[in-house]
Amino acid sequence: MAEPSCPVRALERGKPSQASPKQRQVEARTAVAWEMLVIRKAFTEEKHVSTKTSAADLVTETDRLVEDLIISELRKQFPSHKFISEEATAAGAKCELTASPTWIIDPIDGTCNFVHRFPNVAVSIGFAVHQELEFGVVHHCMEERLYMARRGHGAFCNTQRLYVSKETELSKALILTEIGSKRDPATLKLLLGNMEQLLLAKAHGVRVIGSSTLALCHLAAGAADAYYQFGLHCWDLAAATVIIREAGGIVMDTTVSQATAELQTALRKAMLAKAATWMGQLPPREASTVSLSSATGLAEWGSRDTGSGPLNLMARRVVAAGTRKMATLVAQALQPINYGQDDQA
Amino acid sequence: MAEPSCPVRALERGKPSQASPKQRQVEARTAVAWEMLVIRKAFTEEKHVSTKTSAADLVTETDRLVEDLIISELRKQFPSHKFISEEATAAGAKCELTASPTWIIDPIDGTCNFVHRFPNVAVSIGFAVHQELEFGVVHHCMEERLYMARRGHGAFCNTQRLYVSKETELSKALILTEIGSKRDPATLKLLLGNMEQLLLAKAHGVRVIGSSTLALCHLAAGAADAYYQFGLHCWDLAAATVIIREAGGIVMDTTVSQATAELQTALRKAMLAKAATWMGQLPPREASTVSLSSATGLAEWGSRDTGSGPLNLMARRVVAAGTRKMATLVAQALQPINYGQDDQA
Repeated sequence: MAEPSCPVRALERGKPSQASPKQRQVEARTAVAWEMLVIRKAFTEEKHVSTKTSAADLVTETDRLVEDLIISELRKQFPSHKFISEEATAAGAKCELTASPTWIIDPIDGTCNFVHRFPNVAVSIGFAVHQELEFGVVHHCMEERLYMARRGHGAFCNTQRLYVSKETELSKALILTEIGSKRDPATLKLLLGNMEQLLLAKAHGVRVIGSSTLALCHLAAGAADAYYQFGLHCWDLAAATVIIREAGGIVMDTTVSQATAELQTALRKAMLAKAATWMGQLPPREASTVSLSSATGLAEWGSRDTGSGPLNLMARRVVAAGTRKMATLVAQALQPINYGQDDQA
Repeated sequence: MAEPSCPVRALERGKPSQASPKQRQVEARTAVAWEMLVIRKAFTEEKHVSTKTSAADLVTETDRLVEDLIISELRKQFPSHKFISEEATAAGAKCELTASPTWIIDPIDGTCNFVHRFPNVAVSIGFAVHQELEFGVVHHCMEERLYMARRGHGAFCNTQRLYVSKETELSKALILTEIGSKRDPATLKLLLGNMEQLLLAKAHGVRVIGSSTLALCHLAAGAADAYYQFGLHCWDLAAATVIIREAGGIVMDTTVSQATAELQTALRKAMLAKAATWMGQLPPREASTVSLSSATGLAEWGSRDTGSGPLNLMARRVVAAGTRKMATLVAQALQPINYGQDDQA
C-alpha cells in the first residue's frame, strides 16, 4: 500500500496488470475510503443546495469539497496532467479534451439523489491519454461497490469480473435511462416520446435510478441490456465507458447510428449490384445454387451487428448496450434531444 | 431465538414491542435468512421465465418456490389464517381480504429486475386483521436491508428508526413511481402524461427502480418525498403501507383525493356564504377588522393538509408521501389509469 491517498495512481502506473484482481481491489478500495467517508458523512446531514443550469440541476458544498480533494491529491502526484471536472466546469473552467493525460471527474454523480438521501450516489474518475480512455473507477459510495477497469485488462466490481448481457431482442430488454436536467415542454415531449417508443416495442422495462454512472455500471455488470441518455456530461460517462467496454459491451453515439444505417443500405445495394454482375458470368447451373446473399456475404453481414458510430465523449448523448445489435435497435428508436456539446458550452 | 423459521411470527405475538429494536432485528434477520438464500442463489442463475397478464408481467420458478416456502411455514404455525399471495392469485385463487387474520405476500417484488439480475428485489409480507394492516416486513434480498413496522411501534430498517421526509413543495420533491405491466398505447399515454405533469411542475426528479415495495420503503426512509402508481397489487403495498405509516407518512387513494378536493371547494363556498351572512350582522367597524377567511377559519383550513382519502388496498392505485400536502399535490396532478380491482379480477 504505497499510495493510499490516490484512488487511481496505482492503475495508471501499471501495477494492476501485475497484481491479482483481489490485490487491485484492496489497493483501490483503501484509496477511495476518504471520498467515501466525506460523502457518507454528508449524506445524512442537512445540505446547502444551489442550482446551476436549471432548477433540477443541483449542487451542494459536498460536490465541491470532494472535487477539490480529488483534484488537489492528483495534482500533487501528477503536476503536468490536465483535469476536466463537473464543478470546475460549472465555475467557468474550459472543458477540453486534448492529447495530454487528462483526468475526467464527477465528484458526486447523482447529486439530486444525494440531496434527497436516495442511495444511488457515486464518485466517477476516468483517465484519458491522446483522447483515448485508458481506465475508469466508479465508487458506489453507499454500498461499498467499486467498479473499475483498465483498457485491455477487464472490468471488475470489487473482486468480481464483469460481463455484459448478450441480449439482442428489444422485447426482452431491461433498459436504463435518465431524465436529464431540462424541464421545458419540448424537451419533455422528446424525452417521454423516446421512453414511449421503447415501451411500445415491449421492452421488459425502463428504469431511472438517478445516476448515469451507476446505471452504466449496472449495464457493465449484465444487470440491464441497454442504456441511453441525452444530456449527460463527459464526466458521467468517461469512467463507465471503459468499464462497459472491458466488460464486453458497446458505448456509442446515438446519431451516428442513423448515418451508419444509411451507409449500410448504400453498401448493401452496391454489393448486390456487383454480385448480380458476377453471377451473370457463372454457368447457369452453378448460378442457381448460389443465392445473392451467400455470394455477397450479405447473409452474414445482415446478421452481423452494424450501425455503430464512434462515441463522442463531449456530445452529451450516448447509447450503450451489451451487444451492438441491441445498441443499434435502441438508437434507432430514439429522437435526438439537443443539449449542445460539453466543449462548446 | 424460539422460532427461527417464521419471518414475522415473533412480531405477531407481540415480542418486538418488549424487545429492543436491535433484538427485534436479530430475530427477524435470522428468520428471513432462508428466503434470502433461495433468492440470492437463484439471482445469478439462468431462469425459466414465463409471462402472466402481459409480455412485461413475468414470473419465474423462484417466485413460486419462495411463495410456497413462506406459506407452508406460516400455515404450519397459523393453520386458521388466510393468505393472499401473488402466484396463488395468478393461478386462480380468490383474492379477498376478510376480517380473518390474513397474510398478504409477494414472494419476489421486482420479478423483472430479478430476471435481469438488476439488484432491486424484495420479499414483502404484510399482515391484516379485521381488514386493518397490523404489521409489515420487506426484505431487500440483495442488500441485506430488512424494513419492518408494527402498528403503533414505529418503523425500522435493520436497527435504524425510519422517518419520512417533511417536504411539502412539489418543486423540491423527488418522486418515485413504477411503469406497470400494461403496454397498450392508451395506458402508456396516461402513464407518461402523469410523469410529464410532475416534471412540468419542476419536481427535482422522478425515479423508477422496478420494485414498488422497495420504492415505498425508500419513501418511508425519507429518501424520497412521494410515490404514486396505478397497476400495483395489494401484495406490493400491504407491508410497505404499515412501514410508511409508522414512519409518519401518508398512504392514500389517488381518486378519493379528487372527490375530497371537490368536497373541499363546496364546503369552502358554503362557509364563505355563512361567514358573509354572519359578518353582515356585525357593526360596520368590527366587520372591517375581520376578514372572511379569518372569520371562517379558512386561512387555517386552507393551509391545513386536505384532500386525503382512505386507502383501498384492492384498488390498484396509490399515492404515498411524507406529508399529506405532498400526497394531495401529487394526486391532483394525476390522470387515473384503470387497472381494475384485485378482488374483482
